[in-house]
Formats: sequence, C-alpha cells, structure tokens
Amino acid sequence: METIRKRRSIRKYLAKDVPADLLDELLETAARAQTMGNLQLYSVVVTRDQAMKEQLSPAHFNQPMVKGAPVVLTFCADFNRTTQWCKCRKAVPGYDNLLSFMNAASDALLFTQNFCNLAEEKGLGICYLGTTIYNAGDIIRILQLPKLVVPVATITVGWPDEHPEQSDRLPLAAFVHEETYKDYTPEDIDRYYCPKEALAENRHFVEINQKETLAQIFTDIRYTREANVSISASLLKTLQEQGFMQ
Amino acid sequence: METIRKRRSIRKYLAKDVPADLLDELLETAARAQTMGNLQLYSVVVTRDQAMKEQLSPAHFNQPMVKGAPVVLTFCADFNRTTQWCKCRKAVPGYDNLLSFMNAASDALLFTQNFCNLAEEKGLGICYLGTTIYNAGDIIRILQLPKLVVPVATITVGWPDEHPEQSDRLPLAAFVHEETYKDYTPEDIDRYYCPKEALAENRHFVEINQKETLAQIFTDIRYTREANVSISASLLKTLQEQGFMQ
Repeated sequence: METIRKRRSIRKYLAKDVPADLLDELLETAARAQTMGNLQLYSVVVTRDQAMKEQLSPAHFNQPMVKGAPVVLTFCADFNRTTQWCKCRKAVPGYDNLLSFMNAASDALLFTQNFCNLAEEKGLGICYLGTTIYNAGDIIRILQLPKLVVPVATITVGWPDEHPEQSDRLPLAAFVHEETYKDYTPEDIDRYYCPKEALAENRHFVEINQKETLAQIFTDIRYTREANVSISASLLKTLQEQGFMQ
Repeated sequence: METIRKRRSIRKYLAKDVPADLLDELLETAARAQTMGNLQLYSVVVTRDQAMKEQLSPAHFNQPMVKGAPVVLTFCADFNRTTQWCKCRKAVPGYDNLLSFMNAASDALLFTQNFCNLAEEKGLGICYLGTTIYNAGDIIRILQLPKLVVPVATITVGWPDEHPEQSDRLPLAAFVHEETYKDYTPEDIDRYYCPKEALAENRHFVEINQKETLAQIFTDIRYTREANVSISASLLKTLQEQGFMQ
C-alpha cells in the first residue's frame, strides 16, 4: 500500500540494466491478474535494442523516456494467440469484433497495472505512455503485430535517476458516487477543481501559455478537439485493419 | 508481490460489512494510478443497498456475487466531469469521440486494478465481473450515468468465505515477445496449451459438454461468435448514446 501511496512516474533512469530474470519474474507474477475466461488476452513486446527504441520514439512523439529507458514494454490486446489455438483445435473462433477488442484491451490493461505495481515495489521506476493508441498503426508496423493484436499501453522501465514531486489528485468525493451518479453542479466543480487550479505550477502553465483558465490548457493545447477527432478516425481505421471491426 | 502471486478470485463472502472508511482509503490510494494529463477520467459508483444489487444482478447474468457481496463497485470511464469543468471555465471541450472513450476506459481500468491490489492486500476478497460492458446500457440506466460516462468494470468486494484453488496460467513464453512479435506455429500452440488442456477440470468440462476440445468450450458455449457480434452492436450503440461517437 505504501508503494502505491508514494508512487510517482519516473522519466529519468540510471545507466543500469534491468536483469532479464527480474523482468521475467515481474511479468509472470503480473499475469495473476484477472482475465476473461482465463484466456489471458494480451501479449507484451520487450524492447531492449537501441535501434528498436529509435524506431519507436517518433510514435511516442519523441518523449525522451523511450530512448532513455533500458527497457520499453508494449502491452497489447491480443486475440491472435487464442484464435490460433482455436484453429488448431477444430474450434471456429469469432473474435474479430469490437466486444472482443474491448475484452482483450481490458485484460491487457489490468495486466499492465499489475506489472507497474510489482515493478515499483522492487524499486524500479516506470512511466506510462498514454500515446500508444495515438499512433497504434506505426507501432504495429515496427513491432510486426499481426491481425487481432493492437498495442494499448507502453511502459518505460528502469532504475530511477530522479525523485520528482508527487502530482496532485482530486478529492475522493469528486469521483466516488453513492448508489447512483450525482451529476456535478458548478459549485461542485469549484469545490473539486479550485485547489488544482491554485497550484503554482498550474498557474504558471496558464500564464506562459497566455490562457485564461487551466481547462483551456487541455482544450486548446494538450487535447484539442481537432486532434481527438483526427486520431479517433485513425484509431478506428487501425481497429478495422487489425480485424476487430468485422 | 506475495499478495499478487497468491491471489484468487473470491465469489463467496462473509456476512460482515466492509467499513466505509476502509473503502475510502482504498479508493483514495488507488487514485495514485497513472492518468491521462492527471485528469482522472473515471468515476466509481458504490452499491451497498440490497435493492440496487437486485436491480444490477440481471445485468451481470445473475452471477450470485452481485447480491452476495457487501459492496459492489462499478468503475466507469468518465469524461463528463472533465467536460463540466471545461464548460465552467470558458474552455470548449472536444471529448465526445472514440479516442476520448479509450483514454477514459484506460484510466478507469488502471484505477480498477490498483484498487483490486490494495483491497487484496488488506485481506478482502474481490471478483472482477467482465460482464459489465455486455449490458452496459442496463447499468447506465440503473446507476443513472449521464452522457460521456460508460461502465467498464465491476468488482464485488467482501471478506472471503472460501479458499478456492488458484487457476492456471500460460507459461511466460506464451505471451512475451522479444523485440518483435513472433507469430505462433502449431507446435507453439501445443507447447503452450497442452498443459491447460490436460487439467482434470478442463477435461471434465469438455466431457460434460460433449465437446471434442477445450477450445470448443469457448467458441461454442462461453463466447460464441453470435453473442459477440450481437453484443458488439449493442456496445457500439451504447457508445453512441453516451455521446462518444460524434
């Protein structure tokens, strides 16, 4: 519990390897995560080769962790292996659809988070790259992922070479609802978001970007409608190409 | 690490409450999980009321854990709260699309798995109900979820009243790929799946269902193409109704 309570993402790593047997132990234990029908609808691709990291880097908008970490893990929703198993066993698979993608993505993400908790407990630092589904098509090509395999999360792993401040979180009441969902009034929004908006770093972001509010940093710069619409279209295309929208 | 290594899903619970302050502590700590832009794109609805459990039960195919657990938690992908925040802050949100749903679903699932690990560390038993997205529309109605909120996982929580055998897992080599994805040969499939197929319980399943192979249990009974196609269509409709496919 203390490991999770005190966690922070680590983006700078020591020039020190992560032993293969440690990584194996962590991945094997992480696979105790719940999984649909015990099918383990995921795969993970381990990147240690520097040339492969160079290739992956642009797909993650050149965030420096990709080239700087000893290990990059790409966690994938995978219905290919199960489908191959079915075909070898006189069973006719029907997993080329949206539900199956969501089931596999769920399995992969639970497995990913289990891995993160275990790695941090061992003193490793990790950073979660949410950019994975933004350029999924490029990652598929680089890692040679077959149909019915789609990357959903990337984790950079290494020994920490920094000790950043912990980031803030919303108060519990902002995201917990008793019995039914109570929608948010403007007063609720003020109560839950004013502390975040008052943080020095957030006020600084607003100022240097010449915006009026912190929310505008998200809507106008970090996650714009234009980018979201464009990436949604390419994500849908990727799901089709990978055979999940039959 | 030992908690995760030894974990098993718990489906029978003691008639003993889960204190609200313990649940709050677990949810608050779970929220340390990584989240997109620190937006925490999730909500959780806590069900303790027996009448609410009765309503939710059919949406989970009447699995007995829903009515039998002291607490049922429905974890939701939530872009509503962030959107309300934007609207209160002169920011124009653009989160009514597939990418935003996937980002919120990812946030919600990482948060869910963190919660599961923390709960099990405290000695609680949990069961993950993957049925949540199968009947998402019913759950949305019962829990009164607004647009841009979609349930993605349900966890039943209580003090264990059973100690089941641990389920098997595939060997590590079955789901870990070095540098690039190596597709599976029939020999790989045999090597990875024969131990599972040889388990007494799985041979028993095949026998009582009068099937030829274990894989046919999945394709013909548990997760059929017909059901997957039908549920995929209703899931897509739910995403549209909740405003995520604009």
